[in-house]
Amino acid sequence: MTDIPYKIYLEESEMPESWYNVRADMKNKPAPLLNPATGKPMTAEELGAVFCDELVAQELDDTTAFIAIPEDIRKFYRMYRPSPLVRAYCLEEKLQTPAKIYYKFEGNNTSGSHKLNSAIAQAYYAKHQGLKGVTTETGAGQWGTALSMACAYLGLDCRVYMVKVSYEQKPFRREVMRTYGASVTPSPSMNTEVGRKILAEHPGTTGSLGCAISEAVEDAVTHEGYRYVLGSVLNQVLLHQSVIGLETKAAMDKYGIKPDIIIGCAGGGSNLGGLISPFMGEKLRGEADYRFIAVEPASCPSFTRGVFAYDFCDTGKICPLAKMYTIGSGYIPAPNHAGGLRFHGMSPVLSQLYHDGLMEAVSVKQTDVFEAAEYFARCEGILPAPESSHAIRAAIDEALKCKETGEEKTILFGLTGTGYFDMYAYEKFHDGQMTNYIPTDEELQAAVSTLPKVGE
Amino acid sequence: MTDIPYKIYLEESEMPESWYNVRADMKNKPAPLLNPATGKPMTAEELGAVFCDELVAQELDDTTAFIAIPEDIRKFYRMYRPSPLVRAYCLEEKLQTPAKIYYKFEGNNTSGSHKLNSAIAQAYYAKHQGLKGVTTETGAGQWGTALSMACAYLGLDCRVYMVKVSYEQKPFRREVMRTYGASVTPSPSMNTEVGRKILAEHPGTTGSLGCAISEAVEDAVTHEGYRYVLGSVLNQVLLHQSVIGLETKAAMDKYGIKPDIIIGCAGGGSNLGGLISPFMGEKLRGEADYRFIAVEPASCPSFTRGVFAYDFCDTGKICPLAKMYTIGSGYIPAPNHAGGLRFHGMSPVLSQLYHDGLMEAVSVKQTDVFEAAEYFARCEGILPAPESSHAIRAAIDEALKCKETGEEKTILFGLTGTGYFDMYAYEKFHDGQMTNYIPTDEELQAAVSTLPKVGE
Repeated sequence: MTDIPYKIYLEESEMPESWYNVRADMKNKPAPLLNPATGKPMTAEELGAVFCDELVAQELDDTTAFIAIPEDIRKFYRMYRPSPLVRAYCLEEKLQTPAKIYYKFEGNNTSGSHKLNSAIAQAYYAKHQGLKGVTTETGAGQWGTALSMACAYLGLDCRVYMVKVSYEQKPFRREVMRTYGASVTPSPSMNTEVGRKILAEHPGTTGSLGCAISEAVEDAVTHEGYRYVLGSVLNQVLLHQSVIGLETKAAMDKYGIKPDIIIGCAGGGSNLGGLISPFMGEKLRGEADYRFIAVEPASCPSFTRGVFAYDFCDTGKICPLAKMYTIGSGYIPAPNHAGGLRFHGMSPVLSQLYHDGLMEAVSVKQTDVFEAAEYFARCEGILPAPESSHAIRAAIDEALKCKETGEEKTILFGLTGTGYFDMYAYEKFHDGQMTNYIPTDEELQAAVSTLPKVGE
Repeated sequence: MTDIPYKIYLEESEMPESWYNVRADMKNKPAPLLNPATGKPMTAEELGAVFCDELVAQELDDTTAFIAIPEDIRKFYRMYRPSPLVRAYCLEEKLQTPAKIYYKFEGNNTSGSHKLNSAIAQAYYAKHQGLKGVTTETGAGQWGTALSMACAYLGLDCRVYMVKVSYEQKPFRREVMRTYGASVTPSPSMNTEVGRKILAEHPGTTGSLGCAISEAVEDAVTHEGYRYVLGSVLNQVLLHQSVIGLETKAAMDKYGIKPDIIIGCAGGGSNLGGLISPFMGEKLRGEADYRFIAVEPASCPSFTRGVFAYDFCDTGKICPLAKMYTIGSGYIPAPNHAGGLRFHGMSPVLSQLYHDGLMEAVSVKQTDVFEAAEYFARCEGILPAPESSHAIRAAIDEALKCKETGEEKTILFGLTGTGYFDMYAYEKFHDGQMTNYIPTDEELQAAVSTLPKVGE
């Protein structure tokens, strides 16, 4: 066998032609989305008021294993994919570990993360349906940037509701979106009924992701020719993100590499779900076994300390209910939390897999995360996003266990993006001003006590 | 012949093993650096007080065509190279041009530009010589970031003098450098004699690149075990940057592509010099012909409106004199200039080639540059640095000429980096607040009237 290169790039001809739908191989399917008014599963027609028709079909399809990627999307993918699968030779050397460490790096595009994989798909189907535009929310701005890029490419209008505190404190992301022609509105805003209501009740609020979701959905359903798109959590998003795992598996197969442990950070779950899906498929079909580890922030621990129940995805409670691991839609991470992955719930697909014991989860403190980020940057060169650094932390921890035991395990992790727009958080870390927050049991109990009673 | 992929990545085994020294093929060699005190060529011994020994040898060597890249540097290159040669299919389609457009993209690394290619080489030779550390200056921060990354990798101390206005207005670049363990000092500072002198004379100054160079040089020569390193202009830097052109040529040769026009932005000239060098070598040896176009800002027009003469590289006038196209070391671009490429002179190698009629130069207005940047971002996805966008502007202009004439020319340009840290300038452009400044003839005449009298 040849030596493993530092970076494995697939040829364009080796890139996936279909997405893989892991639900097709799951015995216990993820629970359906429920209509919060009736407590009944959302029909295609109901979902069609919010989402594009083709995306509704993908959302509901839990039997088709492979769904062809339209040629126009594949063309766009070729502009920034395949992403490299990197052998972390320098990290291994610095850790003095016998483990072999690989990472799939999704940050080499202007959105700075894997989000673009689903953004182009969702924008494409909107365009294909003859719509005028799409609406969405964004927190720090990765998803909004990705969607803006996709819409600029296709000539689609893009309206982004950006959490007000990020809009004001992260003007650079906002300007990237404007470069791509998107309109960016700080949320809560006076554009929507839900925004006006929240502003009336909490005049000084700096906004939240859940609130921005509510506004974006309302904007879409009240404007002809618009639909709402979401960057994580949903089944369709995990489907599109399977391109990460499919490329990774093809690259590993090409060089005869089999990972023992697969690690990903988890906020809503889109990156982790995409990375693990073809490997999980093998596990579900009994063809191979892998350890899967989801890594989440200790300050927002939906897997490790949440409950598996139906909950709202948004603060305004206008979205369908999803059955997921959740710490309550009213839960807001402490203000000192700078590491991203702030969503209160977790993708229904991953929640079901976790509930069925098919994957593990750990939570990590943010100072440990930034320590790993800096360590990684100094030897591997790449400046990682705080989100991605959760996976780095866990990968380093597993590699250090191998050092103790002498085991030559192969560790694969997802490096979802770059931290160029997160230097404020890095600055706090450098200045020794970063602190940790771990919610108390009482706090979490109070948060989940507000869960809706439907769907039980 | 196979279809040309969107992105051509060389295999690691195809990456260059030597740098190419274009001076070896030049009939008229670039003029030597002069000692400002004596007016005589700098000796290796004199240069050795400022630069590492091996770099001095490279600086003075104008006969050896290929210089082997040490294995440790090649190892570091493999972490972020080869960089992709991209076929701009989407740009071509949007322009409706018969031209074929390629760009060599150097922005996919944390420094965000090609600067890393020389930073690792210079840091390596410093380490190899047993030095403790290096000093340098940085403006916007690309070079400082690149050097910090290289020093972190090798365990070398790194002291960066950052132009004060950038230090204050671009805290994020500063934090990236700190992430890599560099010490970053706003310049002018009280650390150096030249800094104290400038502060005494101009208490409110926000600094300049020329002033930061003076401080970094003084810091190096007054501290045991330190040397100064520079990110552009010098012969050694162009040598290291030849890796850009060598990879480009290898990728083009592999697919049977021959460029008609090769375009690069030019500040000090390191990217342009690196990109064109192997092609220029063919031209110098009479083996092939190409058009080379240097693109510079209209507000800092050293090629198009400067004089070819000996001048200082720094404001403090403590550096050797270089013979180059210059608009005077006292020239400072107008405050409204946001496009980078602010250096008053141009690399002696490129200056000689330009003087001998082997390449062309154009200057472009910054609003035209940002218009091209946004146009490019929306179809090719990548958010370009303002510097790089000078080359985009010229490439688009050439492609539009092809559209008029129907010629199917092949255009190659260097896309040196990304604009993630330049969103303030983009914001001005979006808000319609960006203006142009073109110096008057009188202004330029006044600036060059201060040229030193030595070396004539």
